Amino acid sequence: MNKRMEMLKNLSVENGCKMVLLVMDGLGGLPDSRGKTELEAAHSPNLDSLAERSELGFLRMVDVGITPGSGPGHLSLFGYDPYEYIVGRGILEACGVGAKVSRGDICTRGNFCTCDGDLITDRRAGRIPTEQSARVVEKLAANIKEIEDVKITFYPGMEHRFVAVFSGEGLDERVHDADPQKEGVPMLWASALAPEASRMADIANKFIKRVQEVLKGDKPANSCLLRGFSSAPNIPHLGELYGIKAAALATYPMYRGLASLVGMEIEDAGKTLEDLFDSVKKCWDRHNYFYVHVKYTDSRGEDGKFDEKVKVIEQVDSLLPKITALNPDVLVVTGDHSTPAIMKGHSWHDVPFMISSNKCRFGLHKTFGENECRFGTIGHISGHKLIGLMLAHAEKLNKYGA
Amino acid sequence: MNKRMEMLKNLSVENGCKMVLLVMDGLGGLPDSRGKTELEAAHSPNLDSLAERSELGFLRMVDVGITPGSGPGHLSLFGYDPYEYIVGRGILEACGVGAKVSRGDICTRGNFCTCDGDLITDRRAGRIPTEQSARVVEKLAANIKEIEDVKITFYPGMEHRFVAVFSGEGLDERVHDADPQKEGVPMLWASALAPEASRMADIANKFIKRVQEVLKGDKPANSCLLRGFSSAPNIPHLGELYGIKAAALATYPMYRGLASLVGMEIEDAGKTLEDLFDSVKKCWDRHNYFYVHVKYTDSRGEDGKFDEKVKVIEQVDSLLPKITALNPDVLVVTGDHSTPAIMKGHSWHDVPFMISSNKCRFGLHKTFGENECRFGTIGHISGHKLIGLMLAHAEKLNKYGA
Repeated sequence: MNKRMEMLKNLSVENGCKMVLLVMDGLGGLPDSRGKTELEAAHSPNLDSLAERSELGFLRMVDVGITPGSGPGHLSLFGYDPYEYIVGRGILEACGVGAKVSRGDICTRGNFCTCDGDLITDRRAGRIPTEQSARVVEKLAANIKEIEDVKITFYPGMEHRFVAVFSGEGLDERVHDADPQKEGVPMLWASALAPEASRMADIANKFIKRVQEVLKGDKPANSCLLRGFSSAPNIPHLGELYGIKAAALATYPMYRGLASLVGMEIEDAGKTLEDLFDSVKKCWDRHNYFYVHVKYTDSRGEDGKFDEKVKVIEQVDSLLPKITALNPDVLVVTGDHSTPAIMKGHSWHDVPFMISSNKCRFGLHKTFGENECRFGTIGHISGHKLIGLMLAHAEKLNKYGA
Repeated sequence: MNKRMEMLKNLSVENGCKMVLLVMDGLGGLPDSRGKTELEAAHSPNLDSLAERSELGFLRMVDVGITPGSGPGHLSLFGYDPYEYIVGRGILEACGVGAKVSRGDICTRGNFCTCDGDLITDRRAGRIPTEQSARVVEKLAANIKEIEDVKITFYPGMEHRFVAVFSGEGLDERVHDADPQKEGVPMLWASALAPEASRMADIANKFIKRVQEVLKGDKPANSCLLRGFSSAPNIPHLGELYGIKAAALATYPMYRGLASLVGMEIEDAGKTLEDLFDSVKKCWDRHNYFYVHVKYTDSRGEDGKFDEKVKVIEQVDSLLPKITALNPDVLVVTGDHSTPAIMKGHSWHDVPFMISSNKCRFGLHKTFGENECRFGTIGHISGHKLIGLMLAHAEKLNKYGA
């Protein structure tokens, strides 16, 4: 725990004030040939009117020039320095399929593959269809429940992918991938990268051999590779840190998974964007911090669809009154990283944000957008410092020193 | 000592240039319903004209969202990272009553209290009047001069409060308060929080017993509680660091105390605001760094009196020519934290500042205020980095590297 986090923990008090963090995934953008970013091009009267009562600035999620993945971007938003708290590949994949992961568990990303004798002939088992893959997972789950007191839980993924979670004593994530990375070569078995991880490597290899037994004679999936061994990061929960009762409202499993890693309670967010915004009211009385996650800004950005990303922002804008009507004491609107449509992917550009409360230097802005954020009173802050700013505006922090 | 401080120390040279740090306590504000902050609402032609020749920006005294007390706020202004250098409660109280504290001394905040046999019946001895309390302090000072080679110095405070400074070998501040925090319960004696502090805890308890003997039969103050054991922080002095000869001009004892902790020489600042501004000239030849502290901006802010805080700023504005007439090579105007009148207390909002010298990117501003500082060329900097900026503008820093 760094000094800042420790200080926030020591200064924080509970007072019933309610905070909302509205995240439009990949919100930050770049201007297309017409000269405006997606956020600037959107017709968003509700966001603009909120900006009039807000302080604006930019969030730097990881560091200058660093493009955050969803894991680091979200950890930062939740108040964790992403240099210090790392979310491994396996655990992120596990979040993505909605796996339950407890502290001490080890997650791995599995690939079904095709073997011919000793040789790996196809690392993806012909990219078998998702449904077929799910049936293979079912078969394995019925046959492999534990290995030497280590419980194994399977989760199906897309196409040839699945997730295996290992739960037991003395497991360590420092295990090299069981994956030769090439075809036409023999299997590369898991190996311990630290003496403490030898049990996990051993269990992993026994697991793969069990998989081969169960799938013997099947086609094309008759074995598997295991990659990205990782444990749930040892993250102090938001409740332990700041005494807040946090709820996650997200329609995508990965974001519910990320939120549960930091101790948020997962509430039902429904399926549609409208459901999502309605769900905040439904659990309003049970929590005092609400993380609301909108996925589609990122998806449209990744697809390179500028105008469709604009439309998602406009939809969010039209639903925003469902949140403002609840009169949260603090409301933040931002993203977890930038996904400029013209780049068709995540980018390092700082993310516009605004924070509103009744303790703002307000009246300085007429609109919410990247250009306007240049003139915000907050300037550029590290993403992981946002939580402290939210706690401050909610008057949940005592004064530091006399 | 952090890397930056070490670098500044290594690069600094003395050249006779004079720097003034004018601190309006709690200067930063928030707009009231009329839409302007206190600083923006003030009619301040002299500050505005200074802004025309200055660079503007914001100081972040501790960190995003952290509300600084006077101790951390000032340490930061004087160039000390408030995460690294901590001012304890006892030492701050000692500063407040004008106590002399040497390195190694331990300060405590005392409360006179009323005991009935073993029980504490009133933790504040009926909040006895300040004059009466002062007489009790006199009586104790005459009777308790030392305990086992540890010299004891008393300072009267307001109402039931006093300060005791313990001077001797082998004293350690890690002592738990001698204060049960409740009434109707027996005394909670001081206890060591680390083995090295057992002597101090022992002396403290012997001290309280001596107080009880001296005050036996008196009413209502017949015992005392001791809280906030703390030593003068081990702070490298400004002179040792940068070779500057610093003077403090402050009408309130606490600020003189804080300044003396970092090695400033205390000069007579008189009683009124006008005295304060006149006092700079009187000691102009003896120093090259002048810390000038105006208390009332904070006081009016704490009282929630927006218009009166505005008036104090206007008074300071009218007196500013007394400083500018001295042609300091570097002049900074700022606060030690924000105290928005609408919040009636300190806040975390970044503090507007301006720095003027003949090496400024000037001509960009027509006024000094929170709104204008958004467009400053300096942006948001940590408060403790200001000293380096002042030294730079005074050409007291050599180039780093060839």
